[in-house]
Parts: sequence; structure tokens; C-alpha cells
Amino acid sequence: MTDKIKIAIFGGSGYGGAELLRILLFHPNAEIVLVTANEHAGKAVGEVHRNLFGLTDLRFEKAPEDLSTLENVDVAFFALPHGQALSLIPQLPETVKIVDLSGDFRINDADIFKRFYKLEHTATDLQKKFVYGLTETNREQIKQANYIANPGCFATATLLALAPLVKSGLLTGKIIVDAKTGSSGSGAKAAANTHHPQRMNSFYAYKPFQHQHVPEIEQHLREVGEFASDFVFMTHSLPVSRGIFASCYLETSDVLNGEDAKKLYERFYQESFFVRVVEGSPDINWVKTTNFCDIAVNTNGRQIAIFAAIDNLVKGAAGQAVQNMNLMFGFEEKTGLILTGSNP
Amino acid sequence: MTDKIKIAIFGGSGYGGAELLRILLFHPNAEIVLVTANEHAGKAVGEVHRNLFGLTDLRFEKAPEDLSTLENVDVAFFALPHGQALSLIPQLPETVKIVDLSGDFRINDADIFKRFYKLEHTATDLQKKFVYGLTETNREQIKQANYIANPGCFATATLLALAPLVKSGLLTGKIIVDAKTGSSGSGAKAAANTHHPQRMNSFYAYKPFQHQHVPEIEQHLREVGEFASDFVFMTHSLPVSRGIFASCYLETSDVLNGEDAKKLYERFYQESFFVRVVEGSPDINWVKTTNFCDIAVNTNGRQIAIFAAIDNLVKGAAGQAVQNMNLMFGFEEKTGLILTGSNP
Amino acid sequence: MTDKIKIAIFGGSGYGGAELLRILLFHPNAEIVLVTANEHAGKAVGEVHRNLFGLTDLRFEKAPEDLSTLENVDVAFFALPHGQALSLIPQLPETVKIVDLSGDFRINDADIFKRFYKLEHTATDLQKKFVYGLTETNREQIKQANYIANPGCFATATLLALAPLVKSGLLTGKIIVDAKTGSSGSGAKAAANTHHPQRMNSFYAYKPFQHQHVPEIEQHLREVGEFASDFVFMTHSLPVSRGIFASCYLETSDVLNGEDAKKLYERFYQESFFVRVVEGSPDINWVKTTNFCDIAVNTNGRQIAIFAAIDNLVKGAAGQAVQNMNLMFGFEEKTGLILTGSNP
Amino acid sequence: MTDKIKIAIFGGSGYGGAELLRILLFHPNAEIVLVTANEHAGKAVGEVHRNLFGLTDLRFEKAPEDLSTLENVDVAFFALPHGQALSLIPQLPETVKIVDLSGDFRINDADIFKRFYKLEHTATDLQKKFVYGLTETNREQIKQANYIANPGCFATATLLALAPLVKSGLLTGKIIVDAKTGSSGSGAKAAANTHHPQRMNSFYAYKPFQHQHVPEIEQHLREVGEFASDFVFMTHSLPVSRGIFASCYLETSDVLNGEDAKKLYERFYQESFFVRVVEGSPDINWVKTTNFCDIAVNTNGRQIAIFAAIDNLVKGAAGQAVQNMNLMFGFEEKTGLILTGSNP
Repeated sequence: MTDKIKIAIFGGSGYGGAELLRILLFHPNAEIVLVTANEHAGKAVGEVHRNLFGLTDLRFEKAPEDLSTLENVDVAFFALPHGQALSLIPQLPETVKIVDLSGDFRINDADIFKRFYKLEHTATDLQKKFVYGLTETNREQIKQANYIANPGCFATATLLALAPLVKSGLLTGKIIVDAKTGSSGSGAKAAANTHHPQRMNSFYAYKPFQHQHVPEIEQHLREVGEFASDFVFMTHSLPVSRGIFASCYLETSDVLNGEDAKKLYERFYQESFFVRVVEGSPDINWVKTTNFCDIAVNTNGRQIAIFAAIDNLVKGAAGQAVQNMNLMFGFEEKTGLILTGSNP
Repeated sequence: MTDKIKIAIFGGSGYGGAELLRILLFHPNAEIVLVTANEHAGKAVGEVHRNLFGLTDLRFEKAPEDLSTLENVDVAFFALPHGQALSLIPQLPETVKIVDLSGDFRINDADIFKRFYKLEHTATDLQKKFVYGLTETNREQIKQANYIANPGCFATATLLALAPLVKSGLLTGKIIVDAKTGSSGSGAKAAANTHHPQRMNSFYAYKPFQHQHVPEIEQHLREVGEFASDFVFMTHSLPVSRGIFASCYLETSDVLNGEDAKKLYERFYQESFFVRVVEGSPDINWVKTTNFCDIAVNTNGRQIAIFAAIDNLVKGAAGQAVQNMNLMFGFEEKTGLILTGSNP
Repeated sequence: MTDKIKIAIFGGSGYGGAELLRILLFHPNAEIVLVTANEHAGKAVGEVHRNLFGLTDLRFEKAPEDLSTLENVDVAFFALPHGQALSLIPQLPETVKIVDLSGDFRINDADIFKRFYKLEHTATDLQKKFVYGLTETNREQIKQANYIANPGCFATATLLALAPLVKSGLLTGKIIVDAKTGSSGSGAKAAANTHHPQRMNSFYAYKPFQHQHVPEIEQHLREVGEFASDFVFMTHSLPVSRGIFASCYLETSDVLNGEDAKKLYERFYQESFFVRVVEGSPDINWVKTTNFCDIAVNTNGRQIAIFAAIDNLVKGAAGQAVQNMNLMFGFEEKTGLILTGSNP
Repeated sequence: MTDKIKIAIFGGSGYGGAELLRILLFHPNAEIVLVTANEHAGKAVGEVHRNLFGLTDLRFEKAPEDLSTLENVDVAFFALPHGQALSLIPQLPETVKIVDLSGDFRINDADIFKRFYKLEHTATDLQKKFVYGLTETNREQIKQANYIANPGCFATATLLALAPLVKSGLLTGKIIVDAKTGSSGSGAKAAANTHHPQRMNSFYAYKPFQHQHVPEIEQHLREVGEFASDFVFMTHSLPVSRGIFASCYLETSDVLNGEDAKKLYERFYQESFFVRVVEGSPDINWVKTTNFCDIAVNTNGRQIAIFAAIDNLVKGAAGQAVQNMNLMFGFEEKTGLILTGSNP
């Protein structure tokens, strides 16, 4: 028990919190010492997340008034609605490492942040300490980091699909990403767009050209390689519970054959257990509830189509958050993350 | 145009109202002169029910303050939450015929009404004028009626499944009905139990032994035949948008073979176009969006299993309401109701 | 009855045939005199398509040995697997008008046909008489035609989305179409890719760069306007039964504002009842089981996103086929096609 | 490594085999030395079960011609279609323990077996050595057993729901079970009843009064307590991938209040980690992909309704099989079976 780190989860009742609990309760190096959920304070975790009934005695608590008292905590995860971590994280002792699953600390430019999140960025100094937590492209920085901005779900799938080609310098012309998400991406609260009678037969686009993951993706692509392309990003709603699928359309300056393209991806991800390069197309069915990102590369002359599939709540949120925690604390990267998907 | 009756719909924005509009807009003898929806007043019907976009210029209105002015209306449909029609219907001119889709006027006994609906019945005199609108068992009374209490969705499927055997006098012992509904039965407003990420993989029972359709079913079974059995009725939630499936378990005093049982049903429903006696089992897939009730009869010695499937919003609500309207005004019963289902 | 045309349907047991039957059985100017389905010959239509049980006495027949005897037939619909109409249509009397729902007569170039369909085109002379049946862009030619090649489902959605901008001459650069289809697009026969336990949680791409609708779309775009762009077309599988959604990414030479773009579409389709220009995004939920194509136009500087949604079996197959039949026989275009969708 | 038992899986390509692999690959005391799948022989397991891609190097093999050579195997799981284990199991060395997931060795009476499975029972001597593997009711016998007949999926949910009350001696009258299964219960091969376009909107009953789990349930109820009631068992198909829900209707001689009934269940299952007694109703959503059986007890006077939910492939097949293996080899019962469900 001595090698277990002490963990606080802020926002344990949403889907991000639910998945953090599912993973961390069985992580061999983790001990959850606090999980907050103001409206469920006092309730057993297994009463709210009935999948965990019988598996834990943990109870939800109200967030403490004075966060500076949390000195015994080694790492705090924030799975709160956008905007809340901005004011809470500065209150924690500096010794507490942070993984924030919201968008609050993903955008370096405060003006762009304000434009997409409709919020004033009130912690721009702290922002500079945050490392973007896309594990596969930022592994070394994450190992040294104390503050992680965990990527958005769409951004994770899109960036993992694009990074190898952007880095390769082979691209020309604009990039178009047609992205689709399952309904759990809208969170645990019922809303018109997730009303089952409608949603089960629906497919539609939303927020055309305006999604808040656009600046996050563009910013990180510039870190990955020379990126100055036009970037069109479009989000759609799928009638499944879990999963993100990104179809990415790119163009190379010269003809790239399929085999070479695939090898480029395999090399880029050869140290990355959770990225699987597959044939033809991935399928969200094979990554659901897991931390895997499945990617397929297809070429036709100079036209390239890259498909990436992830589980939005795992690799797109809680799973990647724990993957980053593992690196920050020197644990093996996949510890606690062998969440085997099922067939069917 | 001279033979068109003038129709008012109170509560046009819910699913019951949506389906009344889908049917009545194309009914050759109907003209909708008023459709209310307080929160959408002023909006085009096709903006709220986007399936109707381009098919009508009708707009939602606020319900008039003074309902007694609606003298030009021939028939008013009420598709409001339980309790509202109780106070509204008495305000209408007596010349207006009424079809109420809520539970307000289905229960003759005010005490039982109060127990199941948690409401005081404030119009017990008017209650006596109401005829229970299960078309297939009450056809002659409906033709003479001015006030129709349109049956509940579960009650419709259950009663159509049970009526022939209850009337036959062959039954003994208790009756058990295991009923299942699609998510649209919960209405058009988003709620926790219809949140898509959960509901799409869910099946569960609810309100065990307490569903408000129980007294309605028992009351009408006593009208259909000698009924004094124990009656167990259980409701479950299905992860489909539309449809009710009732599995009914009965017992006969003597062995009844399957062929005789089927004939008994075919005879009972020989004048009823919308009841189709099928082999083995009905399937909600084949009745969705239609006014049909498909029924199958299976026997094993003295044990009987009757399966009935309907669309909860059509035969279980708006379709049956129009079927009753047709009878009340002397139109052919199926006018406007050939809503062909689709394959798949 | 004297003004009813006599109709033969070849291939009545698949989903295309099922929908032709659903529509034509209730079409006021139609009389079905023959519906073939070799494996179901002798069976009642309502036994195979259980949605039609009780609505018709029609029975499936084997296709006649000698098709030249079908002189009493006014129009024959072919809803057979690709390749079969090629040899059957030439055997019919020349007086019989034809609507072919397969891909057999959509491609004018026999070499391209062979490449995509892996079949020798054995009726290249007859091919010249065929008119491409995208009603909204080819209305006048269809009115004069005796032979109609009914468009593919993906092609219908894509072409309706692209035609106004291609015709406008405002485009520059390549066109990318990310298209998604429901499972009924795979036909009525069970197969691995439509196995429910997998498909209900799936989303994946298939046939990257190779779909057989590509040449059909390119050929017709050249008829619609000056089209010489690169064209990338990608097909994906959705976990819904019905519906096609096409997300189309284009670029204009100059900035086009959203309002102007929308007006361009509204003008282009002002005579087209079945195309509805909507705000933001269409949703397959609102067009399912109908003949509507809902389209939304969004712009961001010079980048354009057009979204189109149809029901693959209606506007993408049987509905459009009947729409073309209506024009060929001088009936009002929407006769028999007011197939009101439902909410939900 | 020395304490790992050596495992052979016969029939690794179906859903039962898929789930055995998902569990046993990560079981700390298990080593899979053989997994057969004749049609996939030579292929990597992760190529067929793409959820396991990257997680194992195991390959499918053809079943050996001579099974008597498998002397190094400690336990063999049979996940083959009904009938095949009957002839294969007798060929294995007697030292190999057996868990058979098929129905071949569940029925003690060869005549009844023949009636329900349409097969001659060719191993009636071996049958006597088989212990019925419902872990919670047969724990002590399973610990001593070498041959386990793993219960059917419907039987598991039904028996766990009924056992406490049958054992209590409080029952009177008949028992009715209305059971529903997800589509994966039909196996991994595509078929008409699992064709997605139909199944996603379907609910129907099948095999009325004839399901092959009836004799298995009745036989074991007689082992659990004094059981001589009429037993009506009805199976239905749900449009979800995974899950079984059994609604059980019983009657007690005297009034039983809900609290006492619940306590009776809690006591019966107090040593059974995988049975969770819940309030109101279980939901298949909360047990999917897990080895849990959630049960709720409701009473109304003398009428009782018990609801049980399991995952058909885990507690209803592979999970329970491993649970039994754990007991047979003296491992902690839940080893390798903490398959945490997810929210959503």
C-alpha cells in the first residue's frame, strides 16, 4: 500500500468522473481519497454509478471550502464543466499535480480561448505551466509536467490521425476532418439532443465551423510539425452511446502509396501501445470502453484518407488522463489501462 | 370542402399532438382550425415538428382565454398532460365533441382516480358522459358518444389482447401481463430515463404493481365480460423509439387447442380492420407508425400466451383518437388511417 | 379505374421492392399487375412484407419465361441486384417504359462500368436511350423519356447537395464528400456487416476511394455544370436502419456569405417540392420513410459545407423511381409520394 | 508462472469463445495452450476478435485429430454448437477437467434431451459425472467436480431469480417467467433474425412454450427445493446487443411484505459476490459485459415479481464458466472476473 498515490477527483458524477472511477478504483498504484459531486454529496458512488455497485464503499463528498488543505493529495483530476477548474486549480497546494479534463487550460492564447469558450481566462500565468496531454506526441514533456491539460475527445482522435503526416512534411493543401461523436459526449445530463426517441434514428451536423476543439487542434498541430494549412473541422452526432470517428482528408505533394503511408504511421506509433494501425477502417465497435485509438491509412494518388476511432470517454478523456498520470508518476504507461473491449 | 369538420387540438407540441397533426392534416374530412402549444405560440408547426416542414402553413397558438367562444369547432382533441383537461373541457361549448387522450376521464370511480393519478377528480358529472374509446370493443357506443376518453397506450394493447378470451368465459385463475414500451411513451421532453447514452442499452421494469393503467384495464374488462380474476400488470422500458408489446399469460378451465383459440380471436375481430391476427408472435417492427394492432395466440394445454403489438403513439393514442372521431361523425372507420408501415 | 397505368415490379422481395409496393399500392393512378420474387413465388406479398399484411391480396410470382408477352404493362420497375436488368430489359416489348433502380444503366462509358461493377455492359445501344433519373436536375428530359436509370442512394444525396454550386460556376479546388448510410442500404439479406450485435455499436468506413457511385456522380456533375475538380468520395456505415447523410466540403473562388449561399439553393430548388432547404443541418430523423431531401448550406469565408439527408430507400430508390414515373406519365410529380415522416 | 493452469478452448471464434478469451487471457492463474476454430485455423485471435488485437499473439488452430494427446491440458472449455461436445468430450484424457458451455450435458433425462434438442444423447454414462454449474446454488458440488455443464443464459437469470423463493417453501400456484434476450444470444453468425435493419426496431416473442432451457430450469428447481408448480417460460428478442432480463411472476401462500422478501434474497446470496440485490428493478445497462446478476424483489400482497438481469455472454456463459473453473481449481471465486461495467 505504501506505493499508492493519493488521488482527488473533482466532478465525480459526470461521465468523465464515472470513467475515472472505473479505472482508478482498480489501478494498482492509486488510492482515491476524495471524490466530489455536490448534488450527490453523501451518496455512495455505487448508487450513482450503478456499474460500480458492490465494487467500492467510496462516497461522494462536497468539494472542501478550503482547497489549500489538500496537502496529502498527490494528484487531482478535474472533470468539471468548462470554466470551473480555472478558479479552483489555483487554490490547491502547489505540491498537488493536476490533470484537467476540461478545456480550461488547453488554449495558450487568451483571446482565442475567450472567442471559443465565451469565458475570460483568469489564470494566464498558470496556463504557462500546463502541458498538453496528448500522450503519444508529448510523452517526454508529460513525464516532467505537474500540470496537464487533457485533450478534448475530438481533438484526441483528430490529432492522432493527423500528427504523423503533419510531422512528415509531405502535406500540401488544406485538411478536412469530418468527425462524429456518440451521445455520451454530451454528458450525463438529459437534454433535447440526447432524447432517446429522437436520437436513436438521428444523424446530423452541429456547430459548423465553430467547434471549440478547432483552436486546440490547430495549436498542437503547429507544435507537431510545420502546419499552416487551411483546416476545416466538422462535428456530427452519431446514434451510439460511445465512440468518436474522425475521417481526415489530406493531400500530399507527391503520390504516396498505401504501403508507405501505413509504414509511416506504424513507425510514428511504434512505441505507442494504445495506437493500433489497422487495415481499411477502424470501427468504434472495437475500441468502445478501451483506451485504444485504431487508425487506418488509405491513399489514392495524392489524396489521403485517414480514419481514427476512439472511445470518447476513455482515450478521449479518463483513460488518457490516467495514461498521463502514469507518466507523471513514473509508472508503466499502461498500468490500469488494459480495459479489454468486448466482441460484440 | 363543405363536408370537412372543424378541429381544435389542445396540446400540439407533444408526441400525441405531433401524431394527431400528421394524421389530421391529410384526413380528407378534417380541417384543423386551432392547434395550441403555449411555449411554441406563434411558431410554425413545421418548425417544431420538422417532419411536417413544407407540408403545412399551420402555426401554434396560445389556448384562448375564453374557451366558450369556440363555437365553430366540431371536435376538440386534448393531448395535454394528465389533469389539465379536467378543468378545460367543462369550459367548452356543449356542441363541441371531445376526444381526450389523457387519463382524466378514463376512470369512473373518483377514489380510484385519485389513488392512481394523485389528483382530485373535479368533473365527476361530466365523467358520466364519457365513453371509453377502445374502438374495437365499444364501437356502437362510440358512434353515439359526444365525449370520448381515449384509452392509454398500455391499456389498448392489453385490452385488445385480453378481450376475446375474457368475453368467452373460458378463463380461470389469474391474468399476468408483462408489458413493454418504447421511449416515446415518456413524452417529448428530455428526462433521465430517456437519456440516449443510457437508454440505448437499457431494459428495466418500472412502477411495479402501481401503473395507472391498471384500474383502466380492470374497469373495461368488467365491461367486456365476467371478469373477477387477479390481475398482475407489469411495465418495462424498451430501447426503441416506438411500440408497445404486451405478453399476456392466461389459463383456461379446459384445454384449448391453438387453432380454436386463433379462430376465437379471428371471429371477435372479424369486423375490425386494424386488428390483425398473426402467427407465432407479432413484432413491433411491423406496426410502427401504423394504426394496426397485431395479435398472436399460443396455447399449451390450459396455458395461454397472447402477444399484442401496437405503436404507442398511433393505435395507442392519436390513431385511435381519429378512429373514434371517424365513428362519431359517421365517416368510414379507417378514413385517414391507412398509415402504411415500412419494411424495414 | 380507367386512368390507372399497369405496373410490373421485377424484384419485389428486397427493400427496394418493398418500398415500391408500399408506395404504388396506394398510388391513385397505379395498378400493380405483376410483382416477381422467384424465391417467394406463390406467397402473399403481406406474408413477406408483414407491414403490408391486410393491405393487399397481391402475390409474388416467378418472372415470366417470355418477357415479350408483357404487352399490357405500361411501366416496369426493376429492383434487382446489379447485372440482372442488363439482360432482362432488352427482352421487354418496346412499348413498356422502364425505371431501373439498379446501377446497370447509369454509366454511359462501358469501360468505366466494367471497372466499377466488374461486369461486361451487354446493352450499350440501349444504354443511349436511358435518361439519368435525378428528378430535380433532369426533370424535362425525364418527362420525355421511356427509359430511366434511377440514381443510386449515395449519388442522389450527393448530387442534390452539389448541383446548385457546381452549376453556379463559383467553385474552385477539390470536392470532398463524406457520406454515411444506414444498414438497409446493404439490402434485405442478412450479412456479417449487418449483424445486429456488431452493427448497433459500429461506425466504420468502407470501400475507400472505390465506391461504384463515384463515376455516376462525376458523370452527372459534368452534365450539371463545368465540373473538372478532383472529387473524393468516402462511404461509411451508420448504426441506423434508414437514411443517408452526405457532408460535402467545397471551396469558392471568392468569399460567399451564408445568406447568399442559402438563397442560391432556394432558387435552384424553388420548383422542387421534395427538396427542403433547412437551417444549420438536416437530420436523417426528419426524412426517414419520406421522399424529402433536406439540405443545409454553411459557409466560412471561402470554405463551404453542404449537408444533405435522405431516406436511402425512398428518395434514394423507390420514391424517386415513382417520382420519375409520375413525370413520364404526365401525373403531378408528388402523386402518391406524400409519405409524411413522423415525430419521433 | 508455475501456478498457472493449462487451458484448451474448443470453439474460440463464436461469442462464447470470444468472451472466454477476453477473460482468460488476463486471468492470473490461466495459460491458454490451445484455442480451436476450424474455419479460422492459422489466423491470429486478434484478427478475428478485433477487440483483442494487440493484446495477444495467440492463433486459432484446428482441433487435433486425436484428443487423447492433450494430456498436458488441465481444463478444457467447450463453446461449440449444441451436439458437438457429446462426441468430443469422451475422447479427452480423464485427467482433463471439463466445462461445457453447450446444452449437451445439462439434461439428465435422455428422452427429454432428445425432445428439446432433437439429438440422441450418446454419452449417458458420462452425463452422470456432470455437475450443473450454477455457481451460486451448487458451489460445493462444483468444487469437487471434474465435469461441469455450464447453465444456459436464460436458465442462469431465471434460476437465480427463482431459487431463493423456491427453496423457501413459501410458494403456491404456477410460476410464469417472461424472459428477454439481446441479439448476441443468437451467436456470431449473421441470420435473418439478427439482420440490423429489422432487429433495431423489433421486439417479438419466439419459440412459445418450446424453449430448450425449460427442462434445464425445471430440473434444477427440483434440486433447489420442493418444486412441482406449473412453469410457463416465454422467450423474447430485445434490440440490444447484450443482456438478459427475466421477469418472474410468483405467488406466496401468505402475504409477504417487500422488505422481508428482499431480506430473504439478501440472505440467500450473502456469500455470492456476483449477485447484487437492488431496489425496484435491475437494468441490463448496469450488468453488460460483467459477471454480475442484479436482482430486485417486489411484492403486492401474495403476488411477487422478481426481476433479474445478466449479461448473456458473461454470467450467462463465459464468465460463469470461469467462475466454475476457479472453484474447481481452488482459486478465489472472483479471480479474473472483476469485469467492471461502465457508465454509460
